[in-house]
Parts: sequence; C-alpha cells; structure tokens
Amino acid sequence: MTFSHSSSGPHGRFPLRTIALIGKYQSREIVESLSLLAKNFHDRGVAVLVEDATAGLSASLPDTDAERQVWTPCGYVEIGARADAAIVLGGDGTMLNAARHLARYRVPLVGVNQGRLGFMTDIAQTDMLTCVDDLLSGKFTAESRMLLAGEIVRDGQVIASNLALNEVVVDKGAIGRLIDFDLYVDDEFLYNLRSDGVIVSTPTGSTAYSLSANGPILHPQVSGIVLVPLCPHSLTNRPVLIGDRNTIKIRIVRADDSRVHFDGQVTFDMKPGDTIYIRRSEDSVYFLHPPGYSYFAMLHKKLHWNRQPAPH
Amino acid sequence: MTFSHSSSGPHGRFPLRTIALIGKYQSREIVESLSLLAKNFHDRGVAVLVEDATAGLSASLPDTDAERQVWTPCGYVEIGARADAAIVLGGDGTMLNAARHLARYRVPLVGVNQGRLGFMTDIAQTDMLTCVDDLLSGKFTAESRMLLAGEIVRDGQVIASNLALNEVVVDKGAIGRLIDFDLYVDDEFLYNLRSDGVIVSTPTGSTAYSLSANGPILHPQVSGIVLVPLCPHSLTNRPVLIGDRNTIKIRIVRADDSRVHFDGQVTFDMKPGDTIYIRRSEDSVYFLHPPGYSYFAMLHKKLHWNRQPAPH
Amino acid sequence: MTFSHSSSGPHGRFPLRTIALIGKYQSREIVESLSLLAKNFHDRGVAVLVEDATAGLSASLPDTDAERQVWTPCGYVEIGARADAAIVLGGDGTMLNAARHLARYRVPLVGVNQGRLGFMTDIAQTDMLTCVDDLLSGKFTAESRMLLAGEIVRDGQVIASNLALNEVVVDKGAIGRLIDFDLYVDDEFLYNLRSDGVIVSTPTGSTAYSLSANGPILHPQVSGIVLVPLCPHSLTNRPVLIGDRNTIKIRIVRADDSRVHFDGQVTFDMKPGDTIYIRRSEDSVYFLHPPGYSYFAMLHKKLHWNRQPAPH
Amino acid sequence: MTFSHSSSGPHGRFPLRTIALIGKYQSREIVESLSLLAKNFHDRGVAVLVEDATAGLSASLPDTDAERQVWTPCGYVEIGARADAAIVLGGDGTMLNAARHLARYRVPLVGVNQGRLGFMTDIAQTDMLTCVDDLLSGKFTAESRMLLAGEIVRDGQVIASNLALNEVVVDKGAIGRLIDFDLYVDDEFLYNLRSDGVIVSTPTGSTAYSLSANGPILHPQVSGIVLVPLCPHSLTNRPVLIGDRNTIKIRIVRADDSRVHFDGQVTFDMKPGDTIYIRRSEDSVYFLHPPGYSYFAMLHKKLHWNRQPAPH
Repeated sequence: MTFSHSSSGPHGRFPLRTIALIGKYQSREIVESLSLLAKNFHDRGVAVLVEDATAGLSASLPDTDAERQVWTPCGYVEIGARADAAIVLGGDGTMLNAARHLARYRVPLVGVNQGRLGFMTDIAQTDMLTCVDDLLSGKFTAESRMLLAGEIVRDGQVIASNLALNEVVVDKGAIGRLIDFDLYVDDEFLYNLRSDGVIVSTPTGSTAYSLSANGPILHPQVSGIVLVPLCPHSLTNRPVLIGDRNTIKIRIVRADDSRVHFDGQVTFDMKPGDTIYIRRSEDSVYFLHPPGYSYFAMLHKKLHWNRQPAPH
Repeated sequence: MTFSHSSSGPHGRFPLRTIALIGKYQSREIVESLSLLAKNFHDRGVAVLVEDATAGLSASLPDTDAERQVWTPCGYVEIGARADAAIVLGGDGTMLNAARHLARYRVPLVGVNQGRLGFMTDIAQTDMLTCVDDLLSGKFTAESRMLLAGEIVRDGQVIASNLALNEVVVDKGAIGRLIDFDLYVDDEFLYNLRSDGVIVSTPTGSTAYSLSANGPILHPQVSGIVLVPLCPHSLTNRPVLIGDRNTIKIRIVRADDSRVHFDGQVTFDMKPGDTIYIRRSEDSVYFLHPPGYSYFAMLHKKLHWNRQPAPH
Repeated sequence: MTFSHSSSGPHGRFPLRTIALIGKYQSREIVESLSLLAKNFHDRGVAVLVEDATAGLSASLPDTDAERQVWTPCGYVEIGARADAAIVLGGDGTMLNAARHLARYRVPLVGVNQGRLGFMTDIAQTDMLTCVDDLLSGKFTAESRMLLAGEIVRDGQVIASNLALNEVVVDKGAIGRLIDFDLYVDDEFLYNLRSDGVIVSTPTGSTAYSLSANGPILHPQVSGIVLVPLCPHSLTNRPVLIGDRNTIKIRIVRADDSRVHFDGQVTFDMKPGDTIYIRRSEDSVYFLHPPGYSYFAMLHKKLHWNRQPAPH
Repeated sequence: MTFSHSSSGPHGRFPLRTIALIGKYQSREIVESLSLLAKNFHDRGVAVLVEDATAGLSASLPDTDAERQVWTPCGYVEIGARADAAIVLGGDGTMLNAARHLARYRVPLVGVNQGRLGFMTDIAQTDMLTCVDDLLSGKFTAESRMLLAGEIVRDGQVIASNLALNEVVVDKGAIGRLIDFDLYVDDEFLYNLRSDGVIVSTPTGSTAYSLSANGPILHPQVSGIVLVPLCPHSLTNRPVLIGDRNTIKIRIVRADDSRVHFDGQVTFDMKPGDTIYIRRSEDSVYFLHPPGYSYFAMLHKKLHWNRQPAPH
C-alpha cells in the first residue's frame, strides 16, 4: 500500500484495522449499503466506526441491534484518532464535509458515489464490495489534494477561519448589488474588482463551482490556485492562476452585504474594511483510489466528452 | 420634433412648456448643474418641475429662495401628468429608476451623465446647456425602449409585480447554494436549470448585468429578450434569445433562498413553488437623443473598442 | 396545409404531386432509405425526382432498373421548377447545401436525419414513412428561415457572391496570423477588429459554428443577425446582435491571407482593400415540420439540457 | 547579479563584456535607438554584437561607417556563443523569435518595447538608457520561462520539430472545415475533439493567443501547460491545465487541411495519421527585468484593469 505514517503523507496503518463509515447527511437510502459495508469489514476482523450523524440514520431500523454489534458510532475527533481510512458514501458534498473535518488527522478517504459518478466519489456503489477486497489487500493508491485555509480579519482581529477543499468564495449577499474589493497576491496589488464576487479555487475545486463560472480545469497534481471572477463589471478580467505558495488577500472596499463561503457549506458575513487571507493549508486531504483509477477517464466520463480515441 | 401625442409614441408637447429635472439619489454634486438647468429653462419660459427627492438635495443651500422661485418640487405622478420631457442627471442607475416610474406616463427622458459616460446617460454634463438649446428647438430624436413586466404568483395569487428597463433577475440569495427552476417560453418547456440564477434582459439591459455574465450585446432596435444563465451547473446552457412577444415562465423547484430583482433596484423573496411570469410591458420608455447620437459610437467609446476605421 | 403559392411564402402545391429526394453527398448508406421513400411516393401517385448526384449513388445496385422506373434523376433547376417539396436525407450539411440551391425557387424542405438528430434534420429515419403519410395528408407546417446574401467587392467590382443559411465567416487562412478589418453596420463604424475573424450568423446558424465560438442561441423567429468575433485580440469584443434589415460591411485592412466562407461549404479568397457586404437575402428557405415539432424540444434534446420539468 | 554560469540558470558573465542587440524585423524606426544603445555600450567598454538582419536595417544610413566601428553584425550562433545578454527592441513577436533562437545558448534577454508596452518587452524605449546603467551595475534580476518542444511524427519518422515560448497550435488550414483529433496526456486518452484546433500554451503564452480563445492567465512561475480548445464542436470542452512534466500527444484523425504553428511564426502541414508530441523543453529562456518590475503590475497596466487599490 502506498500510504504510510510519514509526516507528509496520509495517516493510516496497513493492514487496515479500523475503518470509519461516513454517509450523506440525512439520506436514508444509504443505510442498506452502510450495513453491508459494516458487516463485510466486521467479518474480516476490521473494527468499524460510524460517524455519529450517519449512525443516527439507521436508528429506526428493525435490525438495529445486530448492526450496533458491528459498528461504533463516534464523532470526527475519535475517527481522526482511530481510523486507518474512512469510506464516504454520498456525493461530492458529503466528501467535502468529511474532508474538512478529517484533514488535520490525515485519515485517507475513499469515495463511494450514491448513484451518480462524482468528481471525488469515484467508486460506483455496485463496485463497493469488490473495492473492500482491493482496499484490504492494499491495492489502493493514495493521492494528496491541497486545501485552502481562510482567515477573516476585522479591526486587526481574526474573527473567523475555516478550510476549503474546493473553493473559498467571496460574493454579494441577497441584496443583489455588486461588491467592490481589492485583491492582492503576496501583498502585491492584482486588481480592484466590482463584481458579484470571486472564487478562489483549488485544483480539486476547478471542476465544481469554478467551472460553472468559466474557470479552467486543473489536473489535481498541478500546484496552483485559480482566481475566477463572478460577473465582473469590467470585461477584461479573466481567470488568473497563481502558485500554491502565494497568499491571497481580499479587502472589501464597498458592499451592502457580502459573504465568504467555504466549499459552499460554511458561510460568514463580511463588512467593508474586512480582509480575508487565503493560503494553502499545511494539511492535505488524501484520497484512496481503486486499481485502474484515472483522473482523466473520470473527467471524460463525467463531462460527457464525446468519445473514445479513433482506431489506428 | 419626432415625438408627439400619438397613442403609441411618447407623450410630450412641442414646443416644450414644462420640463422635469430628476437627479441622482442623495448626490449633492449635481445641485449646481440642477440650478443651472432650472435657471436656463425658466429664463426661456419653460416651467420647471423638480422631483421631490432631488429638490430636497438643495434644501440647505443659501440660494434656496431664488431657486424655489424657478422650480416646483413634485412627485412622479405629477411629473407624469405635467412634464413634456424629463432630464435625468446621474448615472444609468438614476435613469433606470426614473424610467420605471415614468414609463406609464410616456414622458420622454434625456440622460445627462454625471462625469462618466453611461449607456443611457449619453450627454456629457459639459454639453448640457448646448443640449437645452437643441432640445428646445426640436432637434432631439426620440427612441423607444421596451420594458419587461414581471408578476410573481404564489398559490394562484399575484403577490408582487414590477417593471424592468434592463433586466429581471431570478437568483439565489445569501446562503450561497444554487437554485433549481424550470423555465418555459409560452408554456413550452425550455430547460430546467440548477444554477446561481438567470438574467432575463431587454436589449437595453444587454450592456448591463447581462454583459458581465457573458450575454450578447443587442442593438436597442432588435425585438428580443435574452435569457442568460448565471453559473449554470451544466456546461451546455448558453444565452438564448427569444422574441419580444413571448412570455417567460420560471417556476422555482428547489431553493433555500431565492430572489427576484427588477433592474437590481427592487427585490422580492421567492419560495419553492412560486412562479414568475415575465413579458414585454405594454408601456415603453422613450429616450431623447441629441443630434449626432449614435448607439454604436456610444458603445464603441464606452467599451473601449480599439480604434477608428483605418484610412482608405 | 399551411404553405401556398403566395409571393412571400413557400412555393408548393397541395396535394403534393411531385416530390424531390436529395441525399447526403457520396453517402451510400442512404440508398435503401431513398428507395423506400421513392417507392412509397410512387405507389401513392406522387412523381419522384432524385437529385443528380444522389441518383448516382445507386448506379451500381442490382435493382437499379426497378428504381429507375419510379424516379427521375434531375438537377436543382428542374427540381426548383417542378417539385412541390423536397426531402433531404443526411445531416445539417446536406440541408445547408440543398437550401442554398433551392432558396430562389422557394421549394419547401423536409429534413430526415441519417442517424443523429440534426438542428435542421429533425425527423428520425425510423419515423420517415409515418411522416410521408402526414406530409401527404397536409399535416406538416411550414416555417420560414432567413438567408444571408454576401457580395465581395474588389476595386469597385463585385467579384463573388453567394448565400448562406447558417453563416458567412470572414477568417484568416492557413498562415495562422490574425487579420485586421473594419466592420460597419449601415455605413456606421462599429469596430476595428484584429482577430482570427468574425462569424455573421442567422438565427438558424446560431446553433452551428457561432455556438462553438460562444455566440448566443437565437430562436429562428427572432429577426436578427449576430456578429461573433473569433479569438479577438481585444478582450472587450463580444457577440453583437443587430437587426435583420441592416447591412454589414467588412473591409479587410491587413491580412496575409483571408477568406470568406458561406455555410462552411463555399470559400473565396480576400485581399486587403476588399470589402464584403452582407445583408438579408430577399429569398427565404421554408422548412416543413411534422406535427408536434417544437424548436425548443429539439434544442433541449440536441444540447442534452438536463431534464424534464419537475412534477408540480 | 542573480544570474550565473550554473547549469540550470542563464548563461552570462558579470560584469557584462559583450551585449547583443536584436531588433524588430524590417522595422527602420528602431535604427536610432539601436545606434544610441550601441554607442552607449561601446563607450562603456562593452562589445556590441548586432544580429545580422537587424544590422542590415541601417545599411543605407549615412552614419553607417561610424556605426560599423561600434558594432559587429553576426548571426544567432555567434550571439549564442559570445553574448552575455541580448537586448531585444520591438514587440512581443520580436522577443518570441529571439527566444526560440537563443534558448539553447541560455543567453538572457532584455525586452525594450517599441512604443506600446508588451507582455514580454516590459521596458519603455524612453527608459532604455537608464536601464543600461542598471543592467551594467547588476541591478537586473533574471526570471526563467519554460519553452515547449514539439515533434511531428509521420509513419514513425520525426519530420519536423521546433520550440515555442508562447504556444504550439494545431489548427485547421484555409479550407475552413473543422479538424478531428485525439489528445493524450502521458499516453492517457484525454479527449477526442472536433474543432478549429487546440492551443497548447506555456504560462508565458497564456496572455497571448490563448487569452483571446478564453484561456486562463497563468503566472509565469506556475508549473503548468494549458490546453485551450478553439471553437470546439462540443459545448463541454474547456481549458485544461496539466503539469509541466507531462507529454501531450495529438493524433490527427480526420482533416482536409491541418497545420502546426510554433509561436505563430513557424508552420508545418499535418496529415491524418500524423502525431505531434509536445513537452517542456530542457532549455528555458531567461528574461532580465529592471528593478521594480512586477508581473502583476505589468498585467494590470496592459489589460487596463480598472484602478489602483482603494485608500484604507
């Protein structure tokens, strides 16, 4: 298995002794798959931890007692401390949430999609059990993904901070008027923008919100951060890609109502004069991919790019 | 003069007997220009009405008494009833507001920009007095611009309605999550969109918000309405242009928080199940342009298109 | 049937006495469908004309003799003079070619796609015979589509001219260097462009090349012509929509190698100093659509827009 | 001075003993500046080499004899062998040409623009002599820029190869029909594209042709190569950024006429079945920038981004 206890790599023992299961929030449809997975790991002598909210989903099922024997409900802190890997069932949103919670513990993540292929949940539910075999026999490979860390500063004080695996977005709120901000890279002035906002995206996030705002697609191994303007007032502002060691500083100049969003899941209000600093987090997320995984093949399939290569 | 009392054209007598002055909201810098204009018209025997909020701007000035003799503060209803034309001082936002208020009265509008050329306020402040001469001697030409009328229906009841000279926008609110809606044209299903929203724009609005969202520029005399998606989840949704006699129906399917904006100035909340109907208003707005006005020349200058034609 | 001998409408008698069949150039796969159609019309007493090149496709087939009895090979001029309607088998390219040839004769066209749904060939090959019934019983509706007429002028002389149903493109040739031209609308200067070229598109063409260059989609009944720049040197040039009664004039200023393309099928070389005039043709093309045809439904299907409306 | 004889850095001695001057092709306007520069360096004891074609420009001038005493006309090979730095006078096109010729010799380049600020020629002609001082006193800093190396393979043989500092473009030729090709990254299939072509751009090239085709802007220090489709037939193909250690393979499937362009200056014809391999060149180009140079400040000025930061 390619992942180990090294300081810069994912955390995880091999062979796996403890696995965590994390499911889509309030999605009862995954209970059956969870039970199957839990039983499968349990039968092979692997301890199973089920994330608290996910465990709660099956509370009313008749076979609760049997299930309770094979899994232990627990919180992210305990999962972080004990799990050698976590399997995430759901869509990309579930993966984003799990990644932000577990990044500091370097627990590697396996993404199983609930129906539709995700950019991050690349294993089909129907292949789930085959993948358990491959995972236990060490055939998965680990891939690191960078995270962004954002800090909002008001009057010299950090008033909020969070992580993003996809993107940090600064945008207008509900009033619908554009916001006006200055953007700096390593304290060098890049531009003043009057717009609906700006997306600061990782390579992972380049296929998410950034793509719908005409941002480029970045291979996950490219070291860069992309700045994508949202409906800029000026016609000459385009997506700009900077290095992953740069610090982005955004200072709100004028705004009736502006917000910061981390992965579209955590939101803070901002006021004129507030500054947000965005840089690469020291922590990374580790994805475990099954044998044969290819980022381009996934992309090709997900974006319906037109067909296979022509025969020679 | 090319405008008259005909039922389909602008309302206005010629020679002009009464003029209205409308200034940018709470902008004290225009007071001097207002006074100049008022005095100029008064000296030529034209009655001057000053819109209430605009008149309030000069309340604290020492020469208030003299000014009060040459102008009459009054509301939009009275301006609608009495003015043969209205001069709007400010930016495009001021023009939008005046247009929505006066559309039903068909009072033709003259736009004087306060510093920077606007798409609608095409007369420079420095040319203002020359334009008064041209206006009084009937050298201006009238141009009609279509408006959109929007009606929001909830549980079978119209709960709100308004006009837009630029655009009606349906978008997500402050929470930052995409909204999901179905869009129909004349009851024919066009698409379901998961996105930040959609802009429904007139030709006039095509150089405003729509342009920053990658919409096309429409010459004002094109009869059409353009639908521009905002950050669509699908990569295949593009701006679509339909006829100006079509009715657009947008039904909110799923949204934590969605809004409707009229010209970015009037906002209503929408809920899942709500429907908004958007169609061309029966009223139009009439702009009066000075001799030599050219839409393309204005566009060319405003967008900094690169240069004059090459010598032959 | 909704089409008749009126001067402005399509040419065609009803009930149909003579039908023309036009197939994709050098495509032997359509021979079987052609034979089926020919036999079907012949059996119902409708005379069948087969376009010369199309007729040539079946020359080597064993059943040629039988076929020759039911169809008459003939050129576009004769088809124009005699046919009450023409059925085009192939893709949109086949339709474009037929349309340019038959526009002057106002022969209405029916498009049958050869496998994949086209924007213009909207009848599936499998529905072909049902459509013959509907066509003969007058259930089809006619829809007119505008054409562009282009004239290239060099040293005061018209050196070439042609029609386009989709678009007229002025672009750089093979050398790969940008071209520099001035563009006027009704002799008013719009812009100077240094770019790979410009697409001048009809509403019909808005879903073709124009769309791949980020042009907007125009409903066929919108009266407008759209100008879409190809890789403009300046970042502020955007698609511009003008009225269908305007004349576009493009004068080549500098170019090592520039070309004009009509529907991507007919090409002329241009030199610096040459001018091309593009305006709406006096002729229109008439498409006949089967019962239930909807432009938006076709668009929705063709562009894979995501799904049907949500249930109420 | 920050550049030296190290194997990976630029070639060049300090203090400078020999300088090369390279001017815009057939541009007589630069002769005066060239003479000034040559005299200035000569007076300070620095040997001056003038690139052959550049030297030819001044052949007919009356002061040729005096000039001949201070400069030595010579070819790129000799410049490569002897010059400690080269000053390029002209636009970005002149710089591209010089860079491709001198890359293998690692001669660092200084770009002086001839009138208009270039992305690479960042020194104004008016600041030229001040810059000579700074250059001689070692105040310039060196920045490396990656190059692409392309090899065209036909029937197993390399039939052509070249370098590009900006981009390698594979596109359709003059006939105007789209080309069809398969694109692989490190032998992994990325997509089949039917389009006008594809731009394979370096970070340096991201502000050139790539930008006009909606590609993102890449800071020069980002390690990546961007693939930008030209008018793709499919609406879901977007710019894709890959690592600078990847090899791109493009195989022409169908094309009536297709070409490869290196920096828009060198062109080869391609045929169906031909393959082009594009990878980062082992050589880099080194730019020398004057004190105070900032990539973002240059970008900001060049793209007319709207204004300076707001006062705090």
